[in-house]
Amino acid sequence: MRKLVAEFAGTALLLIGVVGSGIMAERLSPADVGLQLFQNAAATAGVLYAVILMFGPASGAHFNPAVTLADWALGDFPRRHIVPYVVVQVAGAVTGTVLANLMFDLDAVDWSSRDRSAGHLWLGVAIATAGLVVLIFSLVRTGRARHAAGAVAAYIGGAYYFTSSTSFANPAVTVGRMFSDTFAGIEPSSAPMFIVMQIAGLVAALALIRFVYPQDKPAGTPVS
Amino acid sequence: MRKLVAEFAGTALLLIGVVGSGIMAERLSPADVGLQLFQNAAATAGVLYAVILMFGPASGAHFNPAVTLADWALGDFPRRHIVPYVVVQVAGAVTGTVLANLMFDLDAVDWSSRDRSAGHLWLGVAIATAGLVVLIFSLVRTGRARHAAGAVAAYIGGAYYFTSSTSFANPAVTVGRMFSDTFAGIEPSSAPMFIVMQIAGLVAALALIRFVYPQDKPAGTPVS
Amino acid sequence: MRKLVAEFAGTALLLIGVVGSGIMAERLSPADVGLQLFQNAAATAGVLYAVILMFGPASGAHFNPAVTLADWALGDFPRRHIVPYVVVQVAGAVTGTVLANLMFDLDAVDWSSRDRSAGHLWLGVAIATAGLVVLIFSLVRTGRARHAAGAVAAYIGGAYYFTSSTSFANPAVTVGRMFSDTFAGIEPSSAPMFIVMQIAGLVAALALIRFVYPQDKPAGTPVS
Amino acid sequence: MRKLVAEFAGTALLLIGVVGSGIMAERLSPADVGLQLFQNAAATAGVLYAVILMFGPASGAHFNPAVTLADWALGDFPRRHIVPYVVVQVAGAVTGTVLANLMFDLDAVDWSSRDRSAGHLWLGVAIATAGLVVLIFSLVRTGRARHAAGAVAAYIGGAYYFTSSTSFANPAVTVGRMFSDTFAGIEPSSAPMFIVMQIAGLVAALALIRFVYPQDKPAGTPVS
Repeated sequence: MRKLVAEFAGTALLLIGVVGSGIMAERLSPADVGLQLFQNAAATAGVLYAVILMFGPASGAHFNPAVTLADWALGDFPRRHIVPYVVVQVAGAVTGTVLANLMFDLDAVDWSSRDRSAGHLWLGVAIATAGLVVLIFSLVRTGRARHAAGAVAAYIGGAYYFTSSTSFANPAVTVGRMFSDTFAGIEPSSAPMFIVMQIAGLVAALALIRFVYPQDKPAGTPVS
Repeated sequence: MRKLVAEFAGTALLLIGVVGSGIMAERLSPADVGLQLFQNAAATAGVLYAVILMFGPASGAHFNPAVTLADWALGDFPRRHIVPYVVVQVAGAVTGTVLANLMFDLDAVDWSSRDRSAGHLWLGVAIATAGLVVLIFSLVRTGRARHAAGAVAAYIGGAYYFTSSTSFANPAVTVGRMFSDTFAGIEPSSAPMFIVMQIAGLVAALALIRFVYPQDKPAGTPVS
Repeated sequence: MRKLVAEFAGTALLLIGVVGSGIMAERLSPADVGLQLFQNAAATAGVLYAVILMFGPASGAHFNPAVTLADWALGDFPRRHIVPYVVVQVAGAVTGTVLANLMFDLDAVDWSSRDRSAGHLWLGVAIATAGLVVLIFSLVRTGRARHAAGAVAAYIGGAYYFTSSTSFANPAVTVGRMFSDTFAGIEPSSAPMFIVMQIAGLVAALALIRFVYPQDKPAGTPVS
Repeated sequence: MRKLVAEFAGTALLLIGVVGSGIMAERLSPADVGLQLFQNAAATAGVLYAVILMFGPASGAHFNPAVTLADWALGDFPRRHIVPYVVVQVAGAVTGTVLANLMFDLDAVDWSSRDRSAGHLWLGVAIATAGLVVLIFSLVRTGRARHAAGAVAAYIGGAYYFTSSTSFANPAVTVGRMFSDTFAGIEPSSAPMFIVMQIAGLVAALALIRFVYPQDKPAGTPVS
């Protein structure tokens, strides 16, 4: 229960960070979309660093169904905990987006109309997700999980730029971002294909991790 | 006495950082408010990181009445030290703001006329404060207080963006910012409700911390 | 084999970071080249930090023929591994650039037409490379290789600005950047002289390292 | 001798960072001075982080006569080494500025015409220097000198904004910056008063350090 509360609260705060900073940047820098994304990426990196440190010892700080699945496939995450984790991650993501909307004086739910459907964006989503999963489990499998907060923050901050999709490496975050018609939003009809590509990236990452770091996870090492 | 000097000097330097960088950014980038906030947030993160490292071993580096109260509620901070800490934090905040004004060739005291009264901003203040307190005490309660400087800097840098209130997670800083009619200022009439919401956020944080990290603080662990 | 896969994948991801973020920044901030470079530099620092952590324990995370040569000259990197390392680094760099092009809906190969030939740029390239090699081996020779990811990310992020050449401290990356006619590209005819200057910088760095840190590398210390 | 080479090379690279990134930012972002300073501050923070790690074990990575004097006053830095250190710091600063000029296709020496004389700027310089010295020696006196690189980088990056003088917390850097008539330059006639204020800030810092951290430096602890 404590783990589920941590995953819920952490994912909610992550979405407050992603969606809230997008709204702020869009409002304050209307003249330059690059400057909006820069502010959004930097704020997202900051909140990611904090939230992984915050809840890591409680729940592993997944906040991401792709990470939960990878932890089951590569580590000793129990299969029976997968569904509860994913449910609270998605619920937390939606809750965080609603709070971000309210904090910026918008309707609680405001479906995004931001179309993100194109083959080159799907490639971006798969690469973003694969890199994230390889990063986290390269740390876990070599006893360096203490670096996860900084590494994930740096990676995602960069991936907002180096993937054409502006990252989107997390199915729960993808669902959450449907609920705000602002900078970070995604049209509901674009979301399913993003989630398919996240799973494709996850599968590629599992293969690469198993090849490069073949040893099992040392017993008792937390994800972060 | 040494602790109080450290809290005073640290809070003063923090306000020099917050208010001074706001003035600099406002003057140098008049065309884009987002760019002003970006510079203000980055400089605030830098000074926070430095000042927490600077005075952590001396006083715990609270610089924030909400943190002092939380340390009393959750840890072993002595009740009789609360009032002296809060007094020097507020005095340091005002001193730092005055120094920032003088450094930028403004009147020593120049009351802010920046109205920050609205329900959605209050929600932002409560969320910003709750997140800060949960962050600090999740580190303290798990023996990771050495990460506090980096974590608080990253969190507050992000919170300038992801909360509609541009953070304001600190009653002493809120009082200090009344004394400068510049980018980071707050109209005195807007301040009391901000402080009420900071206390609300603090109360929510205490409950969450107690649920997620129920153990006591390990004896002898400094806050940072 | 595992080492070569790690060098290939890491260099590919590095180039996705460098080239991809250049394209994103160029598209989103057309009005200010400084803002483009700022976004490109920050994203590059982020991906460098992540990718060095990701593959350091597997291959040493060179991703750079200059680093591989320095590791042979200063440490115990076996001579027979130099050619395979350099081959996969270059192959990874080209692959990463092609993926970046595809991700942003460009032709897979699009030769750069960006002329970068001038004496003052060559000085910049030599300084950038010398600083990078001195940095890495000052860490390695003093048992602080664990700082390599953060140090290299900070240094290269800075060097995009403080060298007139916008860094270019890596022959494999230089080759890769020929394949994209976008922000980070380099005209093929400008590349050979850049590589010559990288080798000149490497030679200067080896001399400085040997003077300042004369001791051998402690046995068994990985590069990162 | 090894120490002096390290101080020389490190201060030279620091000035390449400060002056070079100023030129780059000024050229690429002519429309917004705030954006120029932002790029200059971020690149300076990056090079500071790298250069302190690079030469810390060799020379203590002072690169700053104020730090050398403080290390003599507060620690066990030998008096007879002060003059040689200061001489090579100044020589390194001038050399670095000349290299930056050449790298950007300017005359090797180009005296700055940038007037920086005003009482409020002098207050800024004193505060910037005092904060820097307090920061470094709070770390040294509490056995946390390993954090110096990150802390100094974050502090100076912030101080470019929160002090009206854009930091200038280093007499050697002040001298070096006279030699380039570009963004980071300072008119020679403005420099002496800046150096006086740096010494004033140093004196204030020594008093504060001795009060807050009264213990001696633990024997054998390097500055960084």
